[in-house]
Amino acid sequence: MTPSSTPARPVAEHSAQTEQFVIGVDYGTLSGRAVVVRVSDGAELGSATLDYPHAVMDTVLTAGPAAAAGAPVALAPDWALQVPADYVAVLKSAVPAAVAAAGIDPAQVIGIATDFTACTMVPTLADGTPLNELNEHADTPHAYVKLWKHHAAQPHADRINALAAERSEAWLPRYGGLISSEWEFAKGLQLLEEAPALYAEMEHWVEAADWIVWQLTGEYVRNACTAGYKGIWQDGGYPSRDFLAALNPDFAGFVSDKLEHRIGQLGDAAGVLSAEAAAWTGLPQGIAVAVGNVDAHVTAPAAQAVLPGQMVAIMGTSTCHVMNSDTLAEVSGMCGVVDGGIVSGLYGYEAGQSGVGDIFAWYVKNQVPARYVEAADAAGSSIHQYLTDLAYREPVGAHGLVALDWQSGNRSVLVDHELSGVVLGTTLTTRTEEVYRALLEATAFGTRTIVETFNASGVPVTEFIVAGGLLKNPHLMQTYSDVLRMPISTIASEQGPALGSAIHAAVAAGAYPDVRAAGQAMGKLNKNVYMPNEASADAYDVLFAEYTLLHDYFGRGANEVMHRLRAQKRDAVAAASATSTEA
Amino acid sequence: MTPSSTPARPVAEHSAQTEQFVIGVDYGTLSGRAVVVRVSDGAELGSATLDYPHAVMDTVLTAGPAAAAGAPVALAPDWALQVPADYVAVLKSAVPAAVAAAGIDPAQVIGIATDFTACTMVPTLADGTPLNELNEHADTPHAYVKLWKHHAAQPHADRINALAAERSEAWLPRYGGLISSEWEFAKGLQLLEEAPALYAEMEHWVEAADWIVWQLTGEYVRNACTAGYKGIWQDGGYPSRDFLAALNPDFAGFVSDKLEHRIGQLGDAAGVLSAEAAAWTGLPQGIAVAVGNVDAHVTAPAAQAVLPGQMVAIMGTSTCHVMNSDTLAEVSGMCGVVDGGIVSGLYGYEAGQSGVGDIFAWYVKNQVPARYVEAADAAGSSIHQYLTDLAYREPVGAHGLVALDWQSGNRSVLVDHELSGVVLGTTLTTRTEEVYRALLEATAFGTRTIVETFNASGVPVTEFIVAGGLLKNPHLMQTYSDVLRMPISTIASEQGPALGSAIHAAVAAGAYPDVRAAGQAMGKLNKNVYMPNEASADAYDVLFAEYTLLHDYFGRGANEVMHRLRAQKRDAVAAASATSTEA
Repeated sequence: MTPSSTPARPVAEHSAQTEQFVIGVDYGTLSGRAVVVRVSDGAELGSATLDYPHAVMDTVLTAGPAAAAGAPVALAPDWALQVPADYVAVLKSAVPAAVAAAGIDPAQVIGIATDFTACTMVPTLADGTPLNELNEHADTPHAYVKLWKHHAAQPHADRINALAAERSEAWLPRYGGLISSEWEFAKGLQLLEEAPALYAEMEHWVEAADWIVWQLTGEYVRNACTAGYKGIWQDGGYPSRDFLAALNPDFAGFVSDKLEHRIGQLGDAAGVLSAEAAAWTGLPQGIAVAVGNVDAHVTAPAAQAVLPGQMVAIMGTSTCHVMNSDTLAEVSGMCGVVDGGIVSGLYGYEAGQSGVGDIFAWYVKNQVPARYVEAADAAGSSIHQYLTDLAYREPVGAHGLVALDWQSGNRSVLVDHELSGVVLGTTLTTRTEEVYRALLEATAFGTRTIVETFNASGVPVTEFIVAGGLLKNPHLMQTYSDVLRMPISTIASEQGPALGSAIHAAVAAGAYPDVRAAGQAMGKLNKNVYMPNEASADAYDVLFAEYTLLHDYFGRGANEVMHRLRAQKRDAVAAASATSTEA
Repeated sequence: MTPSSTPARPVAEHSAQTEQFVIGVDYGTLSGRAVVVRVSDGAELGSATLDYPHAVMDTVLTAGPAAAAGAPVALAPDWALQVPADYVAVLKSAVPAAVAAAGIDPAQVIGIATDFTACTMVPTLADGTPLNELNEHADTPHAYVKLWKHHAAQPHADRINALAAERSEAWLPRYGGLISSEWEFAKGLQLLEEAPALYAEMEHWVEAADWIVWQLTGEYVRNACTAGYKGIWQDGGYPSRDFLAALNPDFAGFVSDKLEHRIGQLGDAAGVLSAEAAAWTGLPQGIAVAVGNVDAHVTAPAAQAVLPGQMVAIMGTSTCHVMNSDTLAEVSGMCGVVDGGIVSGLYGYEAGQSGVGDIFAWYVKNQVPARYVEAADAAGSSIHQYLTDLAYREPVGAHGLVALDWQSGNRSVLVDHELSGVVLGTTLTTRTEEVYRALLEATAFGTRTIVETFNASGVPVTEFIVAGGLLKNPHLMQTYSDVLRMPISTIASEQGPALGSAIHAAVAAGAYPDVRAAGQAMGKLNKNVYMPNEASADAYDVLFAEYTLLHDYFGRGANEVMHRLRAQKRDAVAAASATSTEA
């Protein structure tokens, strides 16, 4: 293992012996994917995926002795947990499988990097052992990983936001004025207040993005990206002890006792591959391991989109929008702006839609009759493609529907995970595929709301680039182009985050001077694949106006029905099952 | 055939030779049902049903040469047509089949009566020939029957209402201040303006309720019920020529040329069975044929519910509410109040919900995945029963949803068929059966809105009696009891309208002095089958408050999104297919 500093050159000039490779590992919501990438040109030579054995636990704990005994512990509404060992399983399984698939000699691998969903939090002991791996906590929901879409800390986020606004905390505008219930502080406060003994026992509250690097290197380094976007780390510091004490006296030491740790910059090496991790992966001990990163942010260089105004939308179960700018501005409802949060030297902006592909999957699972599934099978289409093709035989607006894409809450620009979904306009002749299309369109309207908010805040969006699995749906992409009235470019890789991680691995290993240079050599983009259609855009404007009216009515306080329904749901479920979420 | 005036006596005192029978025929939305009923005690001895061969035509004309050639004429959104010959087919098929099933001698049948959906309109020549039966009009949508749920005349209804309000027409308050697009005038005005030549050729604009009696007797008699409720016949007159001319000069003669005709009172004989109809039915020529009636109104005596304050809800594809009162009052959004509209001597009130069972059926057809259908099959349940049983395992409010039951528009109390359905509160863990339950509940909230409006208008609802197919769902009935905080009584016949028609046949034949007496002898009721549960009622109050907020926001002008979506839908469909509804 010798991290090379040789500049990249065209493939043909290399002999097989001198080729260098890096591994990118992308930890998604349901699976982890490893990709072997050639350092010289970003060619993806082999990949492998492992579905997490426990997937997402959102109704009961499927891990632990109670589950094994057939009496799993029930989870309250809005919970979403994972099992840390599932992440390690990806290293043991998908990484060697990807190397085998690529047909390369593992000795030629010079670095590995990972990216993760965020904010996904692991409570650990001092040595990084997750609390759920202690026998006495194996049936305790709070001992498990709180996945990004664990949305049960909204009341805690509400208190953080109210207090921060009252005290005019300087960091609040960096997050569009609202801290999300998904993030480190809200989830930490929930843990403290619902399971104080467990909170006391926890020695680190660790981003999964950093926990997996810790497993690879044996060293705990907090990455600058999640520390900034999810951990309220701004201008070198965190929210004050005073602020935390005002939330709850027992929370005063949250930063100093549980959170604070060395910060690593994106593209730097966090350390080198440990002997143990080398054994798991089959990779050479001592190769560079990059600082952790987030699936969305790491994708920007993979799409060659790190210049100011180039917004990258990573569209999968949810959508994350990342964009660099040379301006520091306050954008209402953005997830955050972090200096060097995407690449060093620029302000990295993040925004997001908490449900996108998840909503389509929910619809297909719960609202689509057999005849559609059978017809899709007969046509050799996926059900998603089949419904899309059917629905787009009609002109814009012919379904008479408008939907709100809040089935998983709203991240940007409302930052309220107690919001919920709406479909309006159904009649007795409304067809299954029409509602599906209304949901597709609703996510496009959600994106337009975000883009317009950036434009109005002095951080204009000048290009729109899509990465992620949903770019495979041409009707969806055309809808986004029409709704945004912008060309849509698409990443030319099917594994954007993993490629982005590989780019970071190459930089960490010294093969390129920085992420921008590595992205230019290794990233892949198809420019302006979809162009807006004027007539469709006009018709969508009409629907977008209706969306905005409902968005503001239900999302900005005029009718808090969604919050009240959530509260009634919680009360009803709690009354029916007092044992649902003991700590 | 000798209409007997012998008073009814217990069965045991009759020999088989002296037994008398009547036939009730109920014309529903999708089928016609004939029932043979014993005059003495209302025993139902045999029945038969015929599904209309053309069912409801709401997307294309399935009748006519174009359909036969495989290129059916398309219908615009919100149209719903039927074929008159399908109604005659019921007389030829279901009536003799019911007599055969009852095992009686047809010679012992002393009368026949019919009830029909309303307002369902047939355009005819002077002799009653429907215009669609003329070769030159067989592919003309406007030549067919406009079914009650043909909702494409809303713009015409809007103009009627605006003009009537402006002129303070005395009849307007009798209809809750709003004339429905479903009724004779709105549908007639649509016919005139979209197909003027056809309108000119039409010599009568006939309620299907009266058209079928015309087929039985050879005589055209307008029944007092539909003339009053659907034909704006009040205090012996119709809207003035002046009023009609102000709507459209060519509409000035609508009443005098197309509508006006002899009115028959409910329970009277319209005439006697013609030789032709005797041949169709196998019944004796010359027996009494009662004046036409409406499926809902005819059900009141079948449920022994003709006293003031006894509201009968006939719950099927839609719900019709009928109630007598000794007070003449103005109830906002009721369908109408007609002197003697249900039984003579009392004011008959009608209100309605234009979609109920229809909504559940739409949901099951378009939004329920295979695994539910398979599980229902495996459990030997109907899919409706299976979804209901699943959904009601949860306490009230645990689904976190609220819906608006307007997929077929709103009849009472908003009288607006351009409204549409809403489901609000969905999350990624929302299950199929939860949405189904929210729809069931929404219809209960719709009923409560109607009951509260009557109560607030000085016409209190003191009892609530359910008839119709939906009374077979105990969870639904319990929900209505909880939501209304009233006991629910249920009719003890599975064919309430047909039994009600049979009661009218017996009166028309002279077997009883009036409908009230016949109802006491022949009607059937189970009292207070469901009693309200206090805790559930409290929880439903919370949901009802949310329903009311959305009801008023979307239904009373604050946000006209549903109207705008309908308009956009119409425009989009029209632009895509210019041939959809030529006249």
